[in-house]
Amino acid sequence: MTREADFIAALRAIATDPAARDLMDDAAVLPFAGGLVLTHDMMVEGVHYLPDDAPADVAWKLLAVNLSDLAAKGAEPLGVLLGYAMTDDAAWDAAFAAGLGVAAAALGVPVLGGDTVRMPRGAPRALGLTALGRAPAGGAPSRSGARPGDLLHVSGTIGDAGAGLAIRLGQAAGDAMLVRRYVRPEPRLTLGQWIAPHVTAMADVSDGLLIDADRMGRASGCAIHIDLDAVPLSDALRAMRGEGLDVRLAAASAGDDYELLFTAPPGAITDPGVTVIGRVEAGEGLSLQFKGEAVPLPATLGYEHDAGAQG
Amino acid sequence: MTREADFIAALRAIATDPAARDLMDDAAVLPFAGGLVLTHDMMVEGVHYLPDDAPADVAWKLLAVNLSDLAAKGAEPLGVLLGYAMTDDAAWDAAFAAGLGVAAAALGVPVLGGDTVRMPRGAPRALGLTALGRAPAGGAPSRSGARPGDLLHVSGTIGDAGAGLAIRLGQAAGDAMLVRRYVRPEPRLTLGQWIAPHVTAMADVSDGLLIDADRMGRASGCAIHIDLDAVPLSDALRAMRGEGLDVRLAAASAGDDYELLFTAPPGAITDPGVTVIGRVEAGEGLSLQFKGEAVPLPATLGYEHDAGAQG
Repeated sequence: MTREADFIAALRAIATDPAARDLMDDAAVLPFAGGLVLTHDMMVEGVHYLPDDAPADVAWKLLAVNLSDLAAKGAEPLGVLLGYAMTDDAAWDAAFAAGLGVAAAALGVPVLGGDTVRMPRGAPRALGLTALGRAPAGGAPSRSGARPGDLLHVSGTIGDAGAGLAIRLGQAAGDAMLVRRYVRPEPRLTLGQWIAPHVTAMADVSDGLLIDADRMGRASGCAIHIDLDAVPLSDALRAMRGEGLDVRLAAASAGDDYELLFTAPPGAITDPGVTVIGRVEAGEGLSLQFKGEAVPLPATLGYEHDAGAQG
Repeated sequence: MTREADFIAALRAIATDPAARDLMDDAAVLPFAGGLVLTHDMMVEGVHYLPDDAPADVAWKLLAVNLSDLAAKGAEPLGVLLGYAMTDDAAWDAAFAAGLGVAAAALGVPVLGGDTVRMPRGAPRALGLTALGRAPAGGAPSRSGARPGDLLHVSGTIGDAGAGLAIRLGQAAGDAMLVRRYVRPEPRLTLGQWIAPHVTAMADVSDGLLIDADRMGRASGCAIHIDLDAVPLSDALRAMRGEGLDVRLAAASAGDDYELLFTAPPGAITDPGVTVIGRVEAGEGLSLQFKGEAVPLPATLGYEHDAGAQG
């Protein structure tokens, strides 16, 4: 186990309330007043964002990744709290605050409060955000409800943010839309609320399609089979990289997509923004195919950094 | 204005929802399902705690300071989320997690989830905690409801934690109880819930009795008068420092007490653990007296670091 996994295991031992969902889900779900959904994600300068990223983009992403966890529970956002460990750059702080205001207005959630502290000189910024949402009337879907016979679906397109990061780092050239997908992800709040009553399991694609699908299978005690041909790629990504097996494996393990990944019985979901990419089977493990042939799992399914932690 | 005050002013401009209470209160209060109380406080290594503090003590304090904000709203804790930016010390992390479990059990609140990230090498730990509570049936008291004619009350004893810190730093000798008040503050949850229906304004004493009373007066548009003779001192503090004017001014501006400070009409509160220390008057400003004589305000009323921010 990694150091972080050790710590999460220790936390899991103390997070015994059913609302904690064994720290295996995108969010905690409290059975209060019909259901409250709570999530908290952090971002550290130099770890989760680049020191020269625009502060308004960092603010947008901090809010969006938390709201994406609410979307995966079908929740309606009620409000957010900011935890802001600041450094000595007043212009950065001002641009961050203004950007958070724009993001909160655009994404339709009130900023309710939080805490501001100062880091020691030379230490990086550490940002946290808590989002609170109202669970859907039928209850918040979990990551663990997939059943054999269900189809595996994903919203939108996959791999755009990973390509956008490569463009942002100067490693490749490509459409500005791809960079935008990386710096300004849009949580699928409306879709999540719409489909929540019809899914058997749901999560957001934050660390990579393959790793997030694998976690869903493990949590549900089922096998997950993905047809890589069916993984939806944007026109911009195809134009940049083509659509061969390597491109599809890279897209499916790149992360930062913030699309919704969910299982449902055949015919239950017919939204045009959603693609069937595989199926749930009895057994265990993740399996892949491309053009009718089995494909070995890549060495890395996605970001492991927060495996098992909420968010 | 300080840099932090600038940033809080910028946040206030975007936190326009009534539930945010203009970022002037201990917590946000959402009008959902009878009232939800939300607060988030952070602690940074080397800023809010000493690098050689025991990790279980840091965990206790992180939880206690957030629950103290719920106590000031008369709220019943529903759960907490942890934000943990870790470093490279696995033993510290393990002791922190175990200590958080003990603290959560002792203080009666479930740990529901959160996020764990890694700081870059050499950077200090940054810890955040979000606490969610159920507002009392009659609504959560605000900091701004004090009215002329009310009496000003405080629970417990004041100044113990400040003396405990001095002992902890080797600057003085004194009773171990005082150190315990500093490292293991006990939020006044039961008292807060009990008195909430009867108070006109309430806050916790986190930054110092004088500065927290001054904020209450400013928020309420009233003058606050404090009789320093009446400020309750523990026997251990008297034994260590006596009970003269200097001792009382130091105790009333030291902070970290996590007692409840509140206003109520005469006769409304008769709890034996509560002391009347002053009164609310028409006008503005904070005034002090000792042995019947007016006392000028000290240069520092308490910690200014989070003036105006929630928490």
